[in-house]
Amino acid sequence: MTRSLTRVGIVGGGQLGRMLAQAGAPLDLRFTFLDPGSEPCASAHGEHLQADWQDPAALEQLVETCDAITFEFENVPFEAVERLAERRPAYPPAQALATARDRWLEKSLFRSLDIAVPPIARIDSQADLDAAVADIGLPAVVKTRTMGYDGKGQKVMREAGDVAGTFDELGGVPLILEGFVDFDHEISAIAVRARDGEIRYWPVVRNEHRQGILHCSIPQTAHALQAQAEDYASRVMNELDYVGVMAFEFFVTADGLLANEIAPRVHNSGHWSIEGAVTSQFENHVRAVTDLPLGETAQLAPCAMLNIIGAFPEREAVLALPGTRWHDYGKAPRPGRKIGHITVLAVDERQLGERVAAVESLLVNDLG
Amino acid sequence: MTRSLTRVGIVGGGQLGRMLAQAGAPLDLRFTFLDPGSEPCASAHGEHLQADWQDPAALEQLVETCDAITFEFENVPFEAVERLAERRPAYPPAQALATARDRWLEKSLFRSLDIAVPPIARIDSQADLDAAVADIGLPAVVKTRTMGYDGKGQKVMREAGDVAGTFDELGGVPLILEGFVDFDHEISAIAVRARDGEIRYWPVVRNEHRQGILHCSIPQTAHALQAQAEDYASRVMNELDYVGVMAFEFFVTADGLLANEIAPRVHNSGHWSIEGAVTSQFENHVRAVTDLPLGETAQLAPCAMLNIIGAFPEREAVLALPGTRWHDYGKAPRPGRKIGHITVLAVDERQLGERVAAVESLLVNDLG
Repeated sequence: MTRSLTRVGIVGGGQLGRMLAQAGAPLDLRFTFLDPGSEPCASAHGEHLQADWQDPAALEQLVETCDAITFEFENVPFEAVERLAERRPAYPPAQALATARDRWLEKSLFRSLDIAVPPIARIDSQADLDAAVADIGLPAVVKTRTMGYDGKGQKVMREAGDVAGTFDELGGVPLILEGFVDFDHEISAIAVRARDGEIRYWPVVRNEHRQGILHCSIPQTAHALQAQAEDYASRVMNELDYVGVMAFEFFVTADGLLANEIAPRVHNSGHWSIEGAVTSQFENHVRAVTDLPLGETAQLAPCAMLNIIGAFPEREAVLALPGTRWHDYGKAPRPGRKIGHITVLAVDERQLGERVAAVESLLVNDLG
Repeated sequence: MTRSLTRVGIVGGGQLGRMLAQAGAPLDLRFTFLDPGSEPCASAHGEHLQADWQDPAALEQLVETCDAITFEFENVPFEAVERLAERRPAYPPAQALATARDRWLEKSLFRSLDIAVPPIARIDSQADLDAAVADIGLPAVVKTRTMGYDGKGQKVMREAGDVAGTFDELGGVPLILEGFVDFDHEISAIAVRARDGEIRYWPVVRNEHRQGILHCSIPQTAHALQAQAEDYASRVMNELDYVGVMAFEFFVTADGLLANEIAPRVHNSGHWSIEGAVTSQFENHVRAVTDLPLGETAQLAPCAMLNIIGAFPEREAVLALPGTRWHDYGKAPRPGRKIGHITVLAVDERQLGERVAAVESLLVNDLG
């Protein structure tokens, strides 16, 4: 073999890294995963560098051996990302990761770009919390500014009695309060931005959560707010000079979209695109970080994605249903853990509804 | 990790094995490739057992470490396949491989199942050849009964002067003579049969060859002879008690289909199904040999597959065209060698034609 191989370094070795590698395989890209685990599920599809995400020697090795670097999640220290980016193309940019992992910075960015958001307040003390509740009212939710996900690190306050002591209860760390909004449903927008600034958007996705964890995502071919979602997404991505896939969660209200949060990475609500779009979020992320042209994002067929959480349904029974594709992340089942997903394809919306219902009847999701 | 992994052994480590492994990755299947090469292109996606395909120790190791075994090509000795099949599920069955690798046995099977074939004759000597030419006429083609592919090991005879000495010229090995038939175009049918006997069919594919090598395949959503192709395919697969994907090449004539040949494996003319069908030929082959239910074979969108042969076109230019997906087999370019393919997706036939023409204008195929 005399051909030179392009190797992509991924910080993190979970299912997102695994599916990035699966998408890169037909492009003959190779992958190295930096992950502290002994056998992260992505390691079946590339080299595994077992070390902490901030380990200087490991980061040095990643830079030495990879042509481009990307991140499976946002909780990588700003300085570590900056150091990588000085030596190799490393996307998304450090500023995007830092913004996305802090709910206050994230919401502040939205507001600075005239993107509508729910009522919010920055909470650094119980006094801040009391004042914010007086201002915004109840019910409201307080969340840690960083590190929370899938319903963890947050508390819903419904009555006055829920407020006292909440700051300490959540660890005495910086919080954000979000007022409840009257929304019809939640959508996410997935977009990808290339190094030259071109942006492409997949159809927005309607999401259903259960116990705070994504249960089902259905791309919407002609959602009334597709254009607004794309407008909001482009403002954020251009402001951050973003490269790669970014996900945006929005509340759909009578007055249009309210921005909830961003994820600076491929996102669970975009998994349908593996089978359902001309080019998946995973392939386009890989194309963007390796400076290849972006692929078309059009939807190929009505489809849905159902998460497998905590426990597997009977695989044979699911695969015997028409239109189903199975994604096993190679992870040991644990309550509340995302261990796979199922894509359901159909010829029209009616058939899709029937097929989704048939799959749902087989799920044994253990939400912990 | 306490979960037990299913490992599939594949005899052969070329691009077909590679794409089988890519299809099996979301199912969390693992692969071992038995291949004498030092770095066969499939080895990027699994374990590589470097040994001759008949090496007893290597075959023993394959049996010891794999849950099911399959074959990337038909040129595996009958006895070796039988030995494997005594110990592990090994598909396709030895009889199918033996039949498919011998053009005379293959055509004889068609005739025994009342499947129409071109005029043929078995040639074991120059006298047989002279008699067959007198009977069937010219032009005609003689081919070695075994081992020929992509236009190799054959000779077209157009005039009487082409006949003399041809038996020795082709090596003095058993041959088959095939009379020329007046056909409109060539199609292939790809089908998959499960262990329980269920058969599923993809839409038939219209193929264009250049210099005897497949250039372009376009699945046909409503070909007039789809039903006849399925009927013929089912006769062959049921007769052989076949398991896995099988490809059938047919000539389309005014009187219907004439069977040309079978391939007891995933086939180049089915590569479009990776993006273009609900379930690809690769995934369904893997499902069949591991005894998982077959997936739906419906087409998702108009599409075409173009082979990359001998030399790569500029990747960035191809990927910048709308609707293109790139498949690099990780092989070193050599004249006449299949080193990748491009899938083109579109919303309708007109757009597909335009997009295929745009990709074709970039190809620099070196047919050797």
